[in-house]
Formats: sequence, structure tokens, C-alpha cells
Amino acid sequence: MAKQTFIKNAWYVAAMAEEIDSKKPLGRKICGESIAFYRQTNGEVAAVLDFCPHRGAALSLGYVENGLLVCGYHGLKMGPDGKTQAMPLQRVQGFPCMKSFAVVERYGFIWVWPGDRAAAEPDLIPHLEWAQNDDWAYGGGIYHIKCDYRLMVDNLMDLTHETYVHASSIGQKEIDESPVMTEIEGDKVFTRRYMENIMAPPFWQAALEGNGLASDVPVDRWQICRFTPPSHVMIDVGVAHAGYGGFKAPHNKKASSTVVDFITPETEDTMWYFWGMARNFKPHDKVLTAKIQQGQGDIFREDLEVLERQQENLKNFPQFDLLKLDIDAGGVQARRIIERLIDAEIALQNGALNNDDAPLATITF
Amino acid sequence: MAKQTFIKNAWYVAAMAEEIDSKKPLGRKICGESIAFYRQTNGEVAAVLDFCPHRGAALSLGYVENGLLVCGYHGLKMGPDGKTQAMPLQRVQGFPCMKSFAVVERYGFIWVWPGDRAAAEPDLIPHLEWAQNDDWAYGGGIYHIKCDYRLMVDNLMDLTHETYVHASSIGQKEIDESPVMTEIEGDKVFTRRYMENIMAPPFWQAALEGNGLASDVPVDRWQICRFTPPSHVMIDVGVAHAGYGGFKAPHNKKASSTVVDFITPETEDTMWYFWGMARNFKPHDKVLTAKIQQGQGDIFREDLEVLERQQENLKNFPQFDLLKLDIDAGGVQARRIIERLIDAEIALQNGALNNDDAPLATITF
Amino acid sequence: MAKQTFIKNAWYVAAMAEEIDSKKPLGRKICGESIAFYRQTNGEVAAVLDFCPHRGAALSLGYVENGLLVCGYHGLKMGPDGKTQAMPLQRVQGFPCMKSFAVVERYGFIWVWPGDRAAAEPDLIPHLEWAQNDDWAYGGGIYHIKCDYRLMVDNLMDLTHETYVHASSIGQKEIDESPVMTEIEGDKVFTRRYMENIMAPPFWQAALEGNGLASDVPVDRWQICRFTPPSHVMIDVGVAHAGYGGFKAPHNKKASSTVVDFITPETEDTMWYFWGMARNFKPHDKVLTAKIQQGQGDIFREDLEVLERQQENLKNFPQFDLLKLDIDAGGVQARRIIERLIDAEIALQNGALNNDDAPLATITF
Repeated sequence: MAKQTFIKNAWYVAAMAEEIDSKKPLGRKICGESIAFYRQTNGEVAAVLDFCPHRGAALSLGYVENGLLVCGYHGLKMGPDGKTQAMPLQRVQGFPCMKSFAVVERYGFIWVWPGDRAAAEPDLIPHLEWAQNDDWAYGGGIYHIKCDYRLMVDNLMDLTHETYVHASSIGQKEIDESPVMTEIEGDKVFTRRYMENIMAPPFWQAALEGNGLASDVPVDRWQICRFTPPSHVMIDVGVAHAGYGGFKAPHNKKASSTVVDFITPETEDTMWYFWGMARNFKPHDKVLTAKIQQGQGDIFREDLEVLERQQENLKNFPQFDLLKLDIDAGGVQARRIIERLIDAEIALQNGALNNDDAPLATITF
Repeated sequence: MAKQTFIKNAWYVAAMAEEIDSKKPLGRKICGESIAFYRQTNGEVAAVLDFCPHRGAALSLGYVENGLLVCGYHGLKMGPDGKTQAMPLQRVQGFPCMKSFAVVERYGFIWVWPGDRAAAEPDLIPHLEWAQNDDWAYGGGIYHIKCDYRLMVDNLMDLTHETYVHASSIGQKEIDESPVMTEIEGDKVFTRRYMENIMAPPFWQAALEGNGLASDVPVDRWQICRFTPPSHVMIDVGVAHAGYGGFKAPHNKKASSTVVDFITPETEDTMWYFWGMARNFKPHDKVLTAKIQQGQGDIFREDLEVLERQQENLKNFPQFDLLKLDIDAGGVQARRIIERLIDAEIALQNGALNNDDAPLATITF
Repeated sequence: MAKQTFIKNAWYVAAMAEEIDSKKPLGRKICGESIAFYRQTNGEVAAVLDFCPHRGAALSLGYVENGLLVCGYHGLKMGPDGKTQAMPLQRVQGFPCMKSFAVVERYGFIWVWPGDRAAAEPDLIPHLEWAQNDDWAYGGGIYHIKCDYRLMVDNLMDLTHETYVHASSIGQKEIDESPVMTEIEGDKVFTRRYMENIMAPPFWQAALEGNGLASDVPVDRWQICRFTPPSHVMIDVGVAHAGYGGFKAPHNKKASSTVVDFITPETEDTMWYFWGMARNFKPHDKVLTAKIQQGQGDIFREDLEVLERQQENLKNFPQFDLLKLDIDAGGVQARRIIERLIDAEIALQNGALNNDDAPLATITF
């Protein structure tokens, strides 16, 4: 078996909060694990292996009743801990306990920890200021992409591609004419690009106008990409009227926002892409939110074919040594951090396996 | 190669009689064998390997002429015994004889024996009283399902699932509150469930009304499932006004029928499902027959996604030890009988292979 | 790895000339090579591996600018020789040179040589008189077929199949009642069939009428198939009023044309089929050209399912020894020539690999 390509002991975004309700479970594969998500009576989300211990039916085809997940085949009722609670005419004490997953609802997202449940510390979920501050608005969506999730990390840590892939919206010649700076801080990677005294591309002209600012004057533009493990990329982007300090310009001189990218492996070569944009201007303007969401969705859809065809090419030529240019440094460094954390995870796991005292109470297969 | 999962020396339903005509052959894979079925001049059905000995074309793309199957590529004419009868400008005596299959039309179905033709005894086709008795009417259909055929045997030998999968038609709470009794008689398996003094679910209310009986009074309900090898499941079902003897109640107090399930493997993990219902009330009411057929087709279609997702789950977790509860006993026992008969078949085959006198006249590959 | 099934050092038709323009590249796989085709500033066609050396993106998703192929991901600009010419803010001298392919536009087609570029001699492209002579008109098209390209060679070298596959247009009983003569001349294979004093089938009746000739009188019909490596099949076909010399009859007594078949492997088991018809009567009648093209396209589409199902059958029964009848001799001989040329190619390659002086300047992987 090939070495795993993703960290398992980490919080991933598995769903948008509104995807999970208290009647119908959601089945979704995350990091190779088939998971049934559902909402309990108290509203808390539960996540269990999408596999009924009775006959292997997909629990996500069933329904939720009194906070339990009812198998739609023969009525087995499973609790959020993977233990069978009841089944018609059956004594269920001896039923095997199935794998369950640490899951937290926060910031409008459902976060899941596909690895060792005991290690899942909710405090490790990254702090998202924009998600809890009324000065910010957020809109986003989800795409399924048939590529290794790391190709998306590469994609987002080098925005040079905007000039080509997104030529009609956010791309402009000045992007790839400006050097990019890459910095590493612990497990974080930053890539920064500044473009001064340029004209804004269409998307940002609209954003300036949406913010009540002139759009036909020179601006300073910035892109600050921040990778954090396992595979989140937040990007501060914006334009300010030229000469007012760019990223640090006062609010009434700029239109800025944070591009939000939660990149979640589904399998080794497919992924879920939770994309969105958080902005701190006109946060209560829902029409603007919807308009930006629509525009961003259209733009980000342009990446799909590029990435899926790249995945095919790399599969056909696995031995080809890709170039690692300065513009690629962000992705390269992010991959190194991922690699290091996977190695640490494997080492820990091997150590744990040598520990004879380890309990084996749960069927995890 | 993994061990075969189905009996080959047995009669399977391959098609409904009306699917086979005397102009256009039907290509269908049964137990891993690609077969071309067609009707000869005398109306009898023939079944030969769907492979032209000339260049490997699919014979089922050709046509039938004077009772011979004509290859649609270069005009080779094959007889029902797999021997080439003619080909334009060719002497065909030396052409290899292709595999042909024992095939019988009976009871409105085409029965095929995918294994050793010499062992195919028509008397082994099960007797179907309802198919030849004017007091009965029959309606049915065919579904293709992407699952191991044994999952369908399990499904039908435990009707507990009606409560969940078919909640709006034949399901009702009382089913899974009633114990099921499993009995083995030779190669047959029976599971029986009786529910007394209950209200009939929608499907049976309609059947009572169709039979001119009150539907808003308590009834006794029964389900008697009978498995016979290789994989047929007949189910006597019905309701009678409570207190009149249930299954044994007189005709004017009940609505009853036999659910007919011919389960035919296509490959190791796909199957053909011939479903239907035979009833012995109002047998000449064609409108009622069509209505029941429509209703049953809708109900049985609900099983498809459940079974196909179960198949995927079992493929992903092949080592998981499924539970074997009392309600599963019917399927478990049926599988044991199938297993035993496969073993006997393999033993016989190995013995035959050691017999030097065995003729090798037919290309069977 | 199984032995290659196609010659690599040969000219194949990769596209119709009108498929390649000077703005958008065309990605197409030929003999297992993913190739991006595009038109340079001077109009000449270039062909490079469809793989960007930067990050493996598909170059065919990009665009053409000033005669260079621009990667649609990060803007790398590739020249027709596989060398990177420029990339924003990058020094590209050290970039690996990618594989490029010999490519020639001639006779309205794009010819590519998937093998060793140094051996690609344009003079080896076959001479096509009809493509450059004003007395001729041509119409054709392209189909993608999921079969080994050699099944199409077989198909075309034995037109017996017209009687069955194309019964309503060009097929007629007299075809498979007439013997076929097969001859080999060096690397060429000919199969010839003559039918005298017969009635013309519908397609040829229309052709006679299109040529201003009576269609309800007896004709002499001919079919002369010519295979040349790697896998081209040209077929002289026609009918003449009976008794005027058939193939050699004067123009005003016949309707004749050349069926053009360029058969290009995509992979081992898929192919591109460039089909067409060249005629030397009424060459300036564009309405007639379009009508014939439509008719031929409809006829040739009838072969697709036959060939794809044949491919499936042969894959399922790889050990079956297909018959080799007299009517198959054309295909059998063509395959022998292909086999011999592949062997010579492999022998040459092995010799070249033993040559220590051979330069290794290009990444070919």
C-alpha cells in the first residue's frame, strides 16, 4: 500500500452547517472514511462510520429519530458513539461498537477529525475571526474535484494562475509581473504579493463600487496567502486607492476580503473544496453577499478542469520531476509540512501498535 | 481466481417469454456466460454463446432467419446447438462447435442452465401452480441490480425490511414486532411470520378492496418465504379478516397472493431480478393486474439503492463479520445450502476432469 | 508490459486540417502519446507533448499567442520544439526540453509521426492524387471508436460485411456470393472483388443518378481494397453500366470513387477513424459532396457498435483462436506486415539503446 498522502489526526471541514439536519443523515467520505453525519436532539452533530453492523447497509440512507440514527434497512438504531442502542425484538448489548468520529460544529461549518478520536482537541480548530464578528459577512459553497487535494494547495499558494485561469475577472498582467515572497513560520506558510499603482481588474472594480468607492482610479493591490495544516488556505486580498497604504489603508479607501479555502481530501485522488469569501465591508448587504458568492463560484469553477487534467497528466507520468520555481515555493513548503506531520503520525502510530497495553475496545477496521 | 459464488448446474430464469422473438436475438449475461437467445422456426428458444467463431462478433447484434442465428458481421449462420450451419461461399464443416446452453420455455419464462448441458433435466424446473392454473393471474417485471445476488436472497428471506424500506406501502410497525420462525426442509428454507388482529397497510387495504372486502377492519396477516436453490424465493403473503383462520381463511374473507422472485446472477456482483405477483382472486381483472404490477414495481424499486450501497460497503470492508441474528437465519441458511451445492459441483467437476474418457467435442472456454 | 500493437515510426493522420487553428490548441492522443497541436504564426502546425514542464498542466487547455503555446495555468510559453521560450519573471534556459513531434499538414490532413522525430521523413507520407487534383472532390469526417485499430483494418479489407452491416445502402447479396482475391505486393495488401451484371444497391443507384446515368439497368460493380502501413486503407469502388469494362469503363458510363480510411490508434484499444470519400465525377457539386458525406457518415456509424462489441468479446476470450478464412486474408496479411514492422522497430530501438554515443538531449519519458 502506498504511503498515505494526508494527515488523519487533524480537523477538516466536512460540511457546511446547513447540510446537516435532524431528519435525514448526510453520507460523505472524508480522508478515505465513509461517514454518516446527523444532528442529535440537542442539535449537536454526530458522525459515525456509514456502515450498519447488522448487514453492512449504508446508514446514511436511513433517517434520524429521537437523536438516533435509524438504519433504513432493518431498523437498527445507532447512537453518536457508534454503539447500537436498539433494534426491534433484538438484544443489542453484544453488538460491536462501530467507529465514531470527533465532530464539532463551529463557525458555520462541521469539523471532523478522521483519525484517532482520543486526540481530537476542539481547541485545535483554527480561530476564524470573520466567522463570529458582526463586522464581517460570508458566502461560499462546495465543489467536488477529482484531484489530489495537494494540487489545490499548490494552486492557492501561487496566485500567478489568476492571470491565466481567471483572466476575465480577477486576473491581470501585473500579477505575474510581480515577484512573490514566501515565508515559513512554524507550521504556517505565507506567500505575499503586492502590486502598486495599477488599475483594478473587473472583480475588484465591482467590489470598490459595491463599497461606494471610485473604481476607475489607480489602486494598490495585495494577496497574502496563508497555509495552515492540514490543508487550509486563507488569503487576504484587496485593493486600496493608490497611496493610502494598501493592505493597511483605512476602511473608506479600500475593498478587502479574505478568501476562505478549506481543502478536504475525500480519497487519495479526489477532494472536497469548501470555498468562500469573508468581507468586512457592507456586511449586512445580503444582495452583495449573494452577488459575490455567485461571482466567486463562477471563477473557482474555472480551476476544476485545469486541476483534473493536471491530475490525469501526473498519473500518466508519475516519474516526471516537476519544476519548483520561486512562485511554487508556497506549495512546496506546504507539502513539506504535510509530509513531516504525516511522518510524525505514522511514527506515533507504530509506537502505539507496539504498546501491548493498548485497549482494543472499538472495531475500527 | 476467487471461488465461484453461484451454482452453475441449475435452472435460472434468463428472460420473460415475451422478451424473445423470432427476428431479433437477445444478448444477456447469465452466471458470467454471455448468451444469445433466439426463437427457432418451431417457436422453441435456443441459447448459444454470444460469440461468433469467425471473428468474435456478438451474435446478438445479428438477426434470426429460418430458425438460424445469422451473425450481423459476415453472415455466419449458427444453429441452436452451437454448430455453424452455413456461411456464404464457405465450407463450414471444420468450424469449431461453440458452447450452447440447455434452455426451456415454461410458465411464461425462459429457463437456462448455465453449466453442463448434459446434466440439464427439464424436470428439475420447479413446479409453479399459479402459472398454469386459470384461477390465478400474474404480473411482473425485471430489474438489473449492481449487487451480489445473495444480498437479494437475504433481503427476501427477512421481510423485516418492509417496515423501513417500504414504509408507505406494505411496511408496518407490527412486522418487526413479530418474531420470525425459520425452518429447513432438505434444500428448502422457510421463514414464517404471523401478525394477528392488526390494521392492514395501504397496499393490502387496496387488495382487500380489489377483492370486494372491507379494508377498515382488523386483519390477520402472514408472510411465508420459501427459498429453493439455486436462488428462487416464493413468498405467500396476505391478509384475512381477523379470526377467520388467516392463511387458511376461506377465499371470501381474505386477499392473498404469492410474491415471485427469480434471482439470477449476471456476474459475481451484478444480478437480474425477475419480480412479480401471482394472485388467486379476480384473476381475469386485467386492470387490477396492471395496477398491482405498477405498485409492486414501485415498491421493489425502493430496494435497489439499499442493495447497491450495501454491496459497495461490503466490498470496502470485506473482512467485517456481519451479524447473524434470528431475523437473518433464512438468508444464512439459504447461503449455506448454496455453498454446499457449489462445493458438490466443484467436487464433481474435479472428478470429471480426472476422467480420461471424457469427450472434448465442444469448445467451451 | 505487453508488446506494442502499433508501429510508432510512421505517419498517421492526427486531425483534419480545419480542426487546428491559431488561437486554441487541440489535445489528442495518438499511439498512446498525449499531444497538443497548434498552428504557428506562419500557419505551420506544431505538435508537442501535452504536458507543461512546470507543473504538469495540460497545455491543450491553454492558448496560442505569437506562435507560441501558452500554458493556461501559469503562463509558460512553449515553442514548437518543446523548448520553453518564456515564463513571467522566470529564467527558462534550464527548463527541460519536452518531447515534440514531427508534424506535416498535407492534403487537408495533419500528419504526425509519434515515434523517433529524427526518422520522420515527409516524403514517406503517401501520395494522394485525389487530394490535389481539381477533377476530384472529397468529403469526410472523424469517429472515435473503442476498439483495437486492427479490427478496423480487418473490417475494411473484407467488405463481405457490407451485406450485413450496411444492408440498406451499399450491401447486397451478390457481394458475399462473389469470391475475393487477395494479393501482396511488398508492404501493400490488395483484396479485389468483382460483381458483374447485377442491379446496383441504393447508395450506388443514387450515385449513378447524381452522375446523370440510368440507375435501373444492370451494372458491373467493383471493390479494390488497398492496405498500406501503418494502417491506411484506400478502396476503389464503383459501378459501371454492364458490359462497358467495369472499373476501366469510360467516365460517362460509370460512377466511381475512392473510399478513404485513415485508421489511427489512440491507445491499445481505442482509435480515431478518419473516413471519407473522394470522387472524380461532378467534383464541383458541393451539394452532392455534402449528401454523400452525410450518407457515408450514416453508413460508417453502423460499424461502431459491431466493432466495440467485438472488442469486448475478444477481451473476454483472449485465448480463442479466430477463424482465418479466405475473406479474412486481407486483414490477416495486413496484420502480418504490421507485426513485421513493429518487430523491426523494436530491433532498431534495442540496437540504438546499446549505442553509447546516442545523445539524450530530450526528455521523452
